[in-house]
Amino acid sequence: MKVVFIGDIVGSIGRDMVFDHIARLRRKYNADVVIANGENAASGRGITKAIFDDLLRAGVDVVTMGNHTWDQKEIYDFIDDTDYLIRPANFSDEAPGKGMTTISKNGVTLSVINLHGRTFLPPHADPFEKAEKLLEEAHAISPLVFVDFHAEATSEKIAMGWHLDGKASVVVGTHTHVQTADERILPGGTAYLTDAGMTGPYDEILGMKKEDVIYRFKTNLPVRFEVPKKGRGQLNGLYVEIDNQSGKALSVERIMINEDHPFE
Amino acid sequence: MKVVFIGDIVGSIGRDMVFDHIARLRRKYNADVVIANGENAASGRGITKAIFDDLLRAGVDVVTMGNHTWDQKEIYDFIDDTDYLIRPANFSDEAPGKGMTTISKNGVTLSVINLHGRTFLPPHADPFEKAEKLLEEAHAISPLVFVDFHAEATSEKIAMGWHLDGKASVVVGTHTHVQTADERILPGGTAYLTDAGMTGPYDEILGMKKEDVIYRFKTNLPVRFEVPKKGRGQLNGLYVEIDNQSGKALSVERIMINEDHPFE
Amino acid sequence: MKVVFIGDIVGSIGRDMVFDHIARLRRKYNADVVIANGENAASGRGITKAIFDDLLRAGVDVVTMGNHTWDQKEIYDFIDDTDYLIRPANFSDEAPGKGMTTISKNGVTLSVINLHGRTFLPPHADPFEKAEKLLEEAHAISPLVFVDFHAEATSEKIAMGWHLDGKASVVVGTHTHVQTADERILPGGTAYLTDAGMTGPYDEILGMKKEDVIYRFKTNLPVRFEVPKKGRGQLNGLYVEIDNQSGKALSVERIMINEDHPFE
Amino acid sequence: MKVVFIGDIVGSIGRDMVFDHIARLRRKYNADVVIANGENAASGRGITKAIFDDLLRAGVDVVTMGNHTWDQKEIYDFIDDTDYLIRPANFSDEAPGKGMTTISKNGVTLSVINLHGRTFLPPHADPFEKAEKLLEEAHAISPLVFVDFHAEATSEKIAMGWHLDGKASVVVGTHTHVQTADERILPGGTAYLTDAGMTGPYDEILGMKKEDVIYRFKTNLPVRFEVPKKGRGQLNGLYVEIDNQSGKALSVERIMINEDHPFE
Ligand SMILES: [Fe+2]
Ligand SMILES: [Fe+2]
Ligand SMILES: [Fe+2]
Ligand SMILES: [Fe+2]
Ligand SMILES: [Fe+2]
Ligand SMILES: [Fe+2]
Ligand SMILES: [Fe+2]
Ligand SMILES: [Fe+2]
Repeated sequence: MKVVFIGDIVGSIGRDMVFDHIARLRRKYNADVVIANGENAASGRGITKAIFDDLLRAGVDVVTMGNHTWDQKEIYDFIDDTDYLIRPANFSDEAPGKGMTTISKNGVTLSVINLHGRTFLPPHADPFEKAEKLLEEAHAISPLVFVDFHAEATSEKIAMGWHLDGKASVVVGTHTHVQTADERILPGGTAYLTDAGMTGPYDEILGMKKEDVIYRFKTNLPVRFEVPKKGRGQLNGLYVEIDNQSGKALSVERIMINEDHPFE
Repeated sequence: MKVVFIGDIVGSIGRDMVFDHIARLRRKYNADVVIANGENAASGRGITKAIFDDLLRAGVDVVTMGNHTWDQKEIYDFIDDTDYLIRPANFSDEAPGKGMTTISKNGVTLSVINLHGRTFLPPHADPFEKAEKLLEEAHAISPLVFVDFHAEATSEKIAMGWHLDGKASVVVGTHTHVQTADERILPGGTAYLTDAGMTGPYDEILGMKKEDVIYRFKTNLPVRFEVPKKGRGQLNGLYVEIDNQSGKALSVERIMINEDHPFE
Repeated sequence: MKVVFIGDIVGSIGRDMVFDHIARLRRKYNADVVIANGENAASGRGITKAIFDDLLRAGVDVVTMGNHTWDQKEIYDFIDDTDYLIRPANFSDEAPGKGMTTISKNGVTLSVINLHGRTFLPPHADPFEKAEKLLEEAHAISPLVFVDFHAEATSEKIAMGWHLDGKASVVVGTHTHVQTADERILPGGTAYLTDAGMTGPYDEILGMKKEDVIYRFKTNLPVRFEVPKKGRGQLNGLYVEIDNQSGKALSVERIMINEDHPFE
Repeated sequence: MKVVFIGDIVGSIGRDMVFDHIARLRRKYNADVVIANGENAASGRGITKAIFDDLLRAGVDVVTMGNHTWDQKEIYDFIDDTDYLIRPANFSDEAPGKGMTTISKNGVTLSVINLHGRTFLPPHADPFEKAEKLLEEAHAISPLVFVDFHAEATSEKIAMGWHLDGKASVVVGTHTHVQTADERILPGGTAYLTDAGMTGPYDEILGMKKEDVIYRFKTNLPVRFEVPKKGRGQLNGLYVEIDNQSGKALSVERIMINEDHPFE
């Protein structure tokens, strides 16, 4: 099974990058499944029903989330009605939605798990323990398992990679909005990347207007961060091929599209 | 001027990677200057006089530091005796050492500045303000300025990149120990990379034994993190060519050497 | 000079407690000056012009602030027009308002300084250094100096107390909304209390509806904290008598008014 | 049942304060049980077997702990051999020791529970959920339950107080080392105090030499905090009378002994 993952989609520039490139990415990688992190798809803050529907119509199969899951209140109304929008599995048991789903294409089933880190972040339930439990459940269905670990600290993300090596097919980090260059297949067969990066404005700071962010850092005064609607875009992500029998990763490749790295 | 930067050197495996590759890197890139972050050179914790001397003898021209600056107490004894070991400039005025130095090669002078972030880190003096002041001083000497910004958060690092765009020749981040893939020359002419990555063990977590780090994340029980002395190594860094007249970056390239990316 | 200080006023219940008790407090303590922290006066979030005016009309002489200073945007419009509303002095130089003021009563002048902590809080300028500078300025005017140090950590607050012992007449902490019981006159003559506590709802959590706060702790799900408008109130504060010649504190007494500790 | 609780014992000055006053406290309050937090008993860092034995011999019935539990490695050797030393119950399942115990005096049994906060602290298991489970277990034994909640943030501690109101007999906070003045019996019958304060040096910062702590705040340079062995001491704590049938608190009183508040 061939999987394309798209890092945190930020605002309309990010969504347009998806719409402009998803068909080409599917063709280039002969992708069976496209997964995207959509926690910033609505102006940088959560996701709406309309945007979620647009992403699915465009060809995204599963949308994962993160700390911005609840930013758009309407998500409470539709997250329980779809199998293709998941939020971190180690959120509270009282949270709507679920943290794992499955997607079947061409006779092969892939489980997709979303987890949330705790370093420099709120004290959600233990993601390492949760991962083990969910992987057991997932393995009862299929050996192919994709994990989006939404976390800040490199240490926690790499720890999850090694923790799940040989158990998950893919462990990819999201949240920092900067793609890391450490993609590899770990010895146990798990494709790993610390962060997939983000899909949105190319000339700003994590997708937010750079003047605002710099002002905040220089003054600690309140600023409302805005996601610009105009400007150059980028698309960041990951491609992984997974062996259908063993669930091991066969190859892994970073995806980075921007004016300095045009789509080929 | 051609500059090679080596990301956080961790322990003996990291030092050996430097010793094994520095001559080849100098030759490959025809490097005038080699700068290395040495904050973890001594078993992951600071730097000793013997290790600093070894790095200089091996061909490193300037060593920068970070949050681990003071881990080896002997640094208090020698940091003020050398021009080629700097620590973050926005440390306290009472801290020994200095945060900026210059290195001249083949008739060209480069200033090297070390700064420290404050997001998820102690409240050092404002690195944005300090950067502006030091860049003024540096520009009085030469238009070529290299900045190592030792920081955790991607937002703070990218903000520094844009803040210094057109003022510094290079802004490279260190500290997360994972190389990012976002190297570019910003519109004003500043070469930028969010994190250079680290130079040390290839199969551990930030250079520390992975079993220990995973145990800590899973239990929150105390563990003394050890840097292994055996195992595969990696070298991470950055190459930048700077225009001698304008101080603008002409080209930028990530350096990543490990068994999956052998030196070519 | 006799000074009454009122801890963080939270919402309408807090304001009513001030209105109901300020005359009695002035009489009981024969107070020359009343200072109040008003950072939560407007529904828990900042202060408005109308509320500030009400507090002054009721007899508050100087209002101090804290991390909630900018919550009500209209403060930008009036903070520079009054001498009796100050915000933390170690905020950015670009912040409106000022961090020190003076108030003269019965021929005696008192400087009032507001400072902000940095432990578990944003990296504002160094409050210890700022305090030293402002105390020099203040001592050029009068030996009587009152410091409201708005901070979270007990260690940082006590450190400030000892740091200013013999220099300030009073160092009182605010922000945690729980009154501490450690009032004392330090050996150098500075009256000290780690936290004055808060003036607002008596049966909630820091003034916010307890059900909401408990829900947040139990689920980490988003909740908008509300300040209730009905329910029992409390008033917390501090009384200090300062020697007019030396600026040393002569006596210090906690003020706590609620149904379990009725005003006497 | 009459219970005396002694806040964090810090170093030899703290232990001496206990030895000097425990008999008088027992007599004054006619105490059935004495509980003490001992996480800083050994020079500010954890507890040793010798110190634990001394405390028991002096009349302490149960010792609770906190974030410093594991500072003295020898605790691993004896924590599982005693029923009277407990550590936070929401530590990892892999941690030695236990988080709840019982003590019976004069035919009445009291359960003692130790819990750890998560705000500004590591992401231990949910203390609110853990508290509910343990209270169920405890209520199967006796209606009398004492909870030491070792936590930093006032919000988290007050939330626990209200969360357990009517379920626990006493909820007292520890960790900040400053006694708060908000002791009360909540409407459901739970005696509550945000922080009991600490038992140790009276003229330092949280028990550590003040010069060192101030230096750290002013410079962010490394300092090894020392607990002084000479100087004036203080003892902070709480007295609660609990109804033997209902487990409700009947009265609550803060204990503060120092030169400004001599034992009466
Ligand atoms: Fe994101
Ligand atoms: Fe995120
Ligand atoms: Fe490092
Ligand atoms: Fe570092
Ligand atoms: Fe407040
Ligand atoms: Fe506050
Ligand atoms: Fe303690
Ligand atoms: Fe503690």
